[in-house]
Amino acid sequence: MRFAMLPTPWPEVVQGLEAAGHEHGPLDGAEFLVFHGGAEDFPELPASVKYVQMAFAGLDGLREAGLLSGDVRWANAAGLYADSVAEGTLGLMLGAAHMYKLVTARASWDVAETMQHESSFLYEDKTVMIVGAGGIGRRLIELLDPFGCHVIAVNRSGREVPGAQETYPIARLQEEPALWGRADFVVLLAPLTEETHDLVNAEVLEQMKPSAFLINAGRGPLVDTDALVSALRAKQIAGAGLDVTDPEPLPDNHPLWELDNCLITPHTTNTVPIMRRSLPALAVRNAALYEAGERMETECDPVAGY
Amino acid sequence: MRFAMLPTPWPEVVQGLEAAGHEHGPLDGAEFLVFHGGAEDFPELPASVKYVQMAFAGLDGLREAGLLSGDVRWANAAGLYADSVAEGTLGLMLGAAHMYKLVTARASWDVAETMQHESSFLYEDKTVMIVGAGGIGRRLIELLDPFGCHVIAVNRSGREVPGAQETYPIARLQEEPALWGRADFVVLLAPLTEETHDLVNAEVLEQMKPSAFLINAGRGPLVDTDALVSALRAKQIAGAGLDVTDPEPLPDNHPLWELDNCLITPHTTNTVPIMRRSLPALAVRNAALYEAGERMETECDPVAGY
Repeated sequence: MRFAMLPTPWPEVVQGLEAAGHEHGPLDGAEFLVFHGGAEDFPELPASVKYVQMAFAGLDGLREAGLLSGDVRWANAAGLYADSVAEGTLGLMLGAAHMYKLVTARASWDVAETMQHESSFLYEDKTVMIVGAGGIGRRLIELLDPFGCHVIAVNRSGREVPGAQETYPIARLQEEPALWGRADFVVLLAPLTEETHDLVNAEVLEQMKPSAFLINAGRGPLVDTDALVSALRAKQIAGAGLDVTDPEPLPDNHPLWELDNCLITPHTTNTVPIMRRSLPALAVRNAALYEAGERMETECDPVAGY
Repeated sequence: MRFAMLPTPWPEVVQGLEAAGHEHGPLDGAEFLVFHGGAEDFPELPASVKYVQMAFAGLDGLREAGLLSGDVRWANAAGLYADSVAEGTLGLMLGAAHMYKLVTARASWDVAETMQHESSFLYEDKTVMIVGAGGIGRRLIELLDPFGCHVIAVNRSGREVPGAQETYPIARLQEEPALWGRADFVVLLAPLTEETHDLVNAEVLEQMKPSAFLINAGRGPLVDTDALVSALRAKQIAGAGLDVTDPEPLPDNHPLWELDNCLITPHTTNTVPIMRRSLPALAVRNAALYEAGERMETECDPVAGY
């Protein structure tokens, strides 16, 4: 098939698709589009385009901009970055739990004082609640296995997640908000939808343990930022580790920057180099499935956005 | 037996030993001393004291101060903090490899630019060389298992380390310095002795891969700090993660603070709360072994200092 890649072609992806017999060219006349930009970069689709292969897992940006047209089919990159995001998420968990002094340590440090600090160690019987436990969550559960954590998985269906000791459907968190209070780490990996917007708000933060950490590697707006700032200031929870924020990027002088119990990384649990290495194989498989008249491996519902 | 605990008694340890039938009291008349201070706090030992139970794994401070008397027996806390230090070490590895933007991110961040960054991911076929692979190293190997790393263990004897793909005696690093160049992560967990002082110097840093990270959770003087500053400035290696430094604490305005490719935590992979929770059981076991006329579980050679 003929395909286009926008906003700029990635050589790894173009070569991978060409090696599978597809032909790279302009958008006009292309049968499918591989896209790795934001809503502002998204083109008017010519009638030749039958499906769009996205480079990201989250389609929320396009959905909010009203660009998820039902006239074409959509495939995302769900699951493709399970290894990288799970590893980055574990890094955020360990960073938030252990490195409380990191952001202030550029000044004097008092050995006697820092040694007294009560760090939170994963190996000491911790309960980890993973909200949005899909492919990344399953991989994170594998990485947590040697620590012996108790894992509570939360997903849409409530269908049992391998490796988790308990699994609940996300609706259960509203019926039984005390569930939030069982976790030493609340890890957000959910997609952003109308249902998950502000999932963690002031009421949820009140339910959490004072010793608990909130980790967000999903999407910034899963968390009500103002409520989080208040909870961190009041030490209502022990800390947060955020790879995504709302707004993003976080503006200079945003109050989150001033909080010693908040670890922030700039949306780097996944990176473009990882995408470039991982996307070609999926794009080739999806193109073959499309040509065979089948559902693509990561085909999405443009109405739901996932 | 009668025992003293200095510089201050820790209730958890006193209660643990009392529950095993021992009697807490002043140093004069005590048969053993439990000690958790520095060389400057170490008392003149009365003749009643037959052995000293240290709260730390490293005796280098007392050894350098000439305080490791051969007139009494010594036990350290080797292996007791394997869980905590291994977990903290993994945190440093992930932090150094992923969080390159952390220390500068308090200012503006450019999404397009940060997403281009080539992070180093453990899951992508990384080789980890653990220098000083004892109890902490074995535990770290367990934590690394789900990432599928190739582990090169280095210890005194060269005796095979479970879970490592290769094990070498430390002398091999001098005979074959190119070994350093095989590692994506060089992790230092060795005790500080005359042999290991400045183990990582300018020559070793030159052997390392430009993409490699140096992680030090052992003792600060294992690394020639000036050589490390030069290597990090010149981007001769990708970065460093340091829980220990030389000097320690690191003075304000030390050049290491200014380096974006250096992650520093203030000697917190182990903490006093962890020691207080972990030491009582070991102290009780060692006291029983001593009374039975046996070698204590963590008995040390006061000449070697480990």
